[in-house]
Amino acid sequence: MALTLYYHPYSRAAGTLWALEEAGVDCELRVTNIMKGEQKGAELIAKNPMGKLPTLVDGDVVVTEAAAIALYLADRYAPQLAPAVSDPARGTYLRWSFFAPSVIEPAVMAKMTDWPVKEVAAGWGTHAAMLAAAESAIAGRQYVLGDTFSMADVVFGGTLRFMLDFKQIEPAPVFTNYVDRLKQRPAYQRAEERNLAMRKQLGLQ
Amino acid sequence: MALTLYYHPYSRAAGTLWALEEAGVDCELRVTNIMKGEQKGAELIAKNPMGKLPTLVDGDVVVTEAAAIALYLADRYAPQLAPAVSDPARGTYLRWSFFAPSVIEPAVMAKMTDWPVKEVAAGWGTHAAMLAAAESAIAGRQYVLGDTFSMADVVFGGTLRFMLDFKQIEPAPVFTNYVDRLKQRPAYQRAEERNLAMRKQLGLQ
Ligand SMILES: N[C@@H](CCC(=O)N[C@@H](CS)C(=O)NCC(=O)O)C(=O)O
Ligand SMILES: N[C@@H](CCC(=O)N[C@@H](CS)C(=O)NCC(=O)O)C(=O)O
Repeated sequence: MALTLYYHPYSRAAGTLWALEEAGVDCELRVTNIMKGEQKGAELIAKNPMGKLPTLVDGDVVVTEAAAIALYLADRYAPQLAPAVSDPARGTYLRWSFFAPSVIEPAVMAKMTDWPVKEVAAGWGTHAAMLAAAESAIAGRQYVLGDTFSMADVVFGGTLRFMLDFKQIEPAPVFTNYVDRLKQRPAYQRAEERNLAMRKQLGLQ
Repeated sequence: MALTLYYHPYSRAAGTLWALEEAGVDCELRVTNIMKGEQKGAELIAKNPMGKLPTLVDGDVVVTEAAAIALYLADRYAPQLAPAVSDPARGTYLRWSFFAPSVIEPAVMAKMTDWPVKEVAAGWGTHAAMLAAAESAIAGRQYVLGDTFSMADVVFGGTLRFMLDFKQIEPAPVFTNYVDRLKQRPAYQRAEERNLAMRKQLGLQ
């Protein structure tokens, strides 16, 4: 098999399984036990000096950053899951795909840890502004692009799903309705089953 | 003119001028004085509830997040500045484009403010790992993609340039050589001239 994913079911790589299922791409999972520090072993560090999951290897190419991996899978293997590069909707697609890891994640972490950082300098602003922006992405819409599901929903919606499941943001209906819609997708459910099977296989909860 | 950029020369929107010059795209600048809080005015908040620059308006589409804007400009207006979606190099291109705002930026800010956050949970890991990863992107290469300049260099290289100019990372030769190479680009220099002219016009240093 050409693709290999450094994976652990308790990591963002679990979300990458969803991206793989949506894209219909086969991928070997290389289980990397983050509870034993295996992500800092020589094999992964050589590919990704961050020593983090997910890390995708596709032939000669190494892709890191969960959002980049998802967008790569769409662009390369499932172009129907992304607006064409010539389509203005590409701007919306990229906007919310970047917003998830570079605004939602640090804004949530900053709030959880009382991080005192100046709003004007931090690229993720305030928690309240982040929520208002995230809401604007999906209020009155099915998906980030409107009626059309795309890989941006895996990235942006997957981040919201994580934040809701771990009670890191309040369950406002605009978010829970959207995430419920995503959870009904067959690809999401297949990925969850695969994650569950991996957890069982590893003797995890 | 179809495109409008909410802009201030003392903001990340200054880097967006470089992306525009590389893409050869004309764009009206809507000066938004972040020193007077104009970015929180009703006009911009309606488009970007974060109230932040850069914000690009292209017809009906609003694009935020400096990295997303740069990738959008390449995909839509200057496809020669990005690998084709079917090209495996797209993975490398996306990897480092996401790495800049979601790893370099928060890792640098965390170090500057002594932010006590667990490496394993924070998507940006440690400052040392971030530097090692960033170095691996360009060591022995001209550009992120090897010999070919791409919009990923505007994003990733532009972030490194900022961090070096403001002494937020140490000036390791691998970084300074790369950034010097980028600064020699005519498009970079045209953008700098435009930023300088805007600063003068606004009575800024
Ligand atoms: N920016 C990365 C973050 C990846 C990340 O932090 N992964 C965690 C698991 S979810 C990890 O591997 N932690 C182990 C470690 O940092 O040692 C991304 O978006 O993929
Ligand atoms: N995540 C955004 C961050 C944008 C940002 O933080 N812009 C700053 C200027 S560089 C800003 O507008 N600050 C004003 C404020 O937050 O009120 C991006 O990457 O574009």
